[in-house]
Amino acid sequence: MDRRFDAAIEKIRAGENFIVTSHVNPEGDALGSLLGLTLALRLAGKNVTACMEDKVPDLLKFLPGSDTLTGSLDGAASYDATFAVDCGQMDRLGAPLSRCAEIGTLINIDHHRTNDEFGDINIIEAEASSAGEMVYDLIKAAGLEMDKDIATCLYVAISTDTGSFRYSSSKPDTFRKAGELVALGADPWDVASHVYENHPETKLKLFSKVLGTLDVVQCDSFKVATMYVTLEMFESVGADKDLAEGFVNYARAVTGVEVGLLFRESEPGKYKVSMRSRGLIDVAEIAQRFGGGGHRNAAGFKINGELTEVRERLKAVLSGTQQ
Amino acid sequence: MDRRFDAAIEKIRAGENFIVTSHVNPEGDALGSLLGLTLALRLAGKNVTACMEDKVPDLLKFLPGSDTLTGSLDGAASYDATFAVDCGQMDRLGAPLSRCAEIGTLINIDHHRTNDEFGDINIIEAEASSAGEMVYDLIKAAGLEMDKDIATCLYVAISTDTGSFRYSSSKPDTFRKAGELVALGADPWDVASHVYENHPETKLKLFSKVLGTLDVVQCDSFKVATMYVTLEMFESVGADKDLAEGFVNYARAVTGVEVGLLFRESEPGKYKVSMRSRGLIDVAEIAQRFGGGGHRNAAGFKINGELTEVRERLKAVLSGTQQ
Repeated sequence: MDRRFDAAIEKIRAGENFIVTSHVNPEGDALGSLLGLTLALRLAGKNVTACMEDKVPDLLKFLPGSDTLTGSLDGAASYDATFAVDCGQMDRLGAPLSRCAEIGTLINIDHHRTNDEFGDINIIEAEASSAGEMVYDLIKAAGLEMDKDIATCLYVAISTDTGSFRYSSSKPDTFRKAGELVALGADPWDVASHVYENHPETKLKLFSKVLGTLDVVQCDSFKVATMYVTLEMFESVGADKDLAEGFVNYARAVTGVEVGLLFRESEPGKYKVSMRSRGLIDVAEIAQRFGGGGHRNAAGFKINGELTEVRERLKAVLSGTQQ
Repeated sequence: MDRRFDAAIEKIRAGENFIVTSHVNPEGDALGSLLGLTLALRLAGKNVTACMEDKVPDLLKFLPGSDTLTGSLDGAASYDATFAVDCGQMDRLGAPLSRCAEIGTLINIDHHRTNDEFGDINIIEAEASSAGEMVYDLIKAAGLEMDKDIATCLYVAISTDTGSFRYSSSKPDTFRKAGELVALGADPWDVASHVYENHPETKLKLFSKVLGTLDVVQCDSFKVATMYVTLEMFESVGADKDLAEGFVNYARAVTGVEVGLLFRESEPGKYKVSMRSRGLIDVAEIAQRFGGGGHRNAAGFKINGELTEVRERLKAVLSGTQQ
């Protein structure tokens, strides 16, 4: 018997009007969890306002219910309870809640280790692969029904937050739940076609050029792979700046490489540096030395200068990192 | 009660000495299935010769048991039965079996729709996600034990042949089995680190060149993306032939593209053509017209000629496919 959600389920049973929301700059888990819970509550006959400060990213517009999201709440409205899913801090929910007269009991459902328990009810599980997996558990524990649309939303949440079932957070139960969602009608290939196999031609043309700059060097005892993308390269293929997103992962993915770097020219002589580590090197610590930040395995900063010189400076810093 | 494997199980119970083999140019499913079945039979006390014409690709050398593979059989030896897994045609098994005095009953376990039933016992399931999933079923039906090593081999087979659980072949049962294999000790991130985030520098240099050949054309009502890799391109970066594996998926992954093609020059004027479909077009049917085979969404064939002419021939055939 799953008792983790008892307090939340009590609110669902007693209430009528709910908000479901998630963090700004939403990815698959934020949006999939938000919409999965929204649709499940609606299927149970509740009035649900699905709310998010930011717009739905293009790649995720196929998610059922995404067209019912609102970016702002009625200043006079009041609700029985508000569910915040996949959000570690109150301020990451953005502005909408602050404009609402009464958001009711704030129920915080999240899997971020750094969650600061900002809710009235806090259900935090750092071990969960995704907020989507927790929403699945909540729906089951509450005895709510699930249909194909709900299954699709939760499948997207789980699939994207586990890197397509590749990360160590993919536990036996994660697979079991994913299988049940597929049985309910979630379509792995349809999801993949939208989320993973959906690159504009210009992005791949740009990627060709960026991969051509790949350079692997030894820094003390480990290898660093660098790639760069210049304004001229963006222009030559007619690609938007955001199309270089994700390229840096390929620098880290070189056999034997510990740290991958991408230098992205943002204006003439100005670079955004993205860093990825396999775990040995703390790239957040390095990014901080240059005024940036991030996580141990994924960080970044901005720097001015000539590309060759900037690369040499960074390699020198990296060479001094390992004790 | 799963009776599909009864004849094979009878051979396992009655026999002592077995060969397990798979197709030339092996990928994750071929090798994972071969080694999974090999290790399961060995765990049951059988003498098993794991045999494959080609060497183990670098990416798959971490697979348990891969160091026990042999490329040639003793000309004087005889066996009770030979398992061919993930192989559609006898000639794709390569030379080793032909050198053996007596390979016993040939048991053909495969999921290719184009399998020509070359075995004495043929267990063919076009619906199975992978040969690995069929070997899992066989092991269960035979009441054989599974340990962490076997689970890892079968997990790699299933994970790679479903494109990390993205293809439509990923059924509820596929996830259930994957979850059981993880419970037995298969490690999704360890597998991903070896298989997906492990590209030799030369592969990415080659990929840069191949992506540079990307061309998207309209064939009737749908779009086709083509890429090619020539002998000169392999040579210019010092890359082995097998490093082009997987590139074709990026042709299909172009936004709006229905079919992706990769032309890989194997000898001067000879090409291996890999085809990937999103589902609308049956590329196995097209491959068969050129003497090849495969699955609805992933197929291939060999063709001789000049690149431009070969591409035009294929585009003409594709233009006539949709009703």
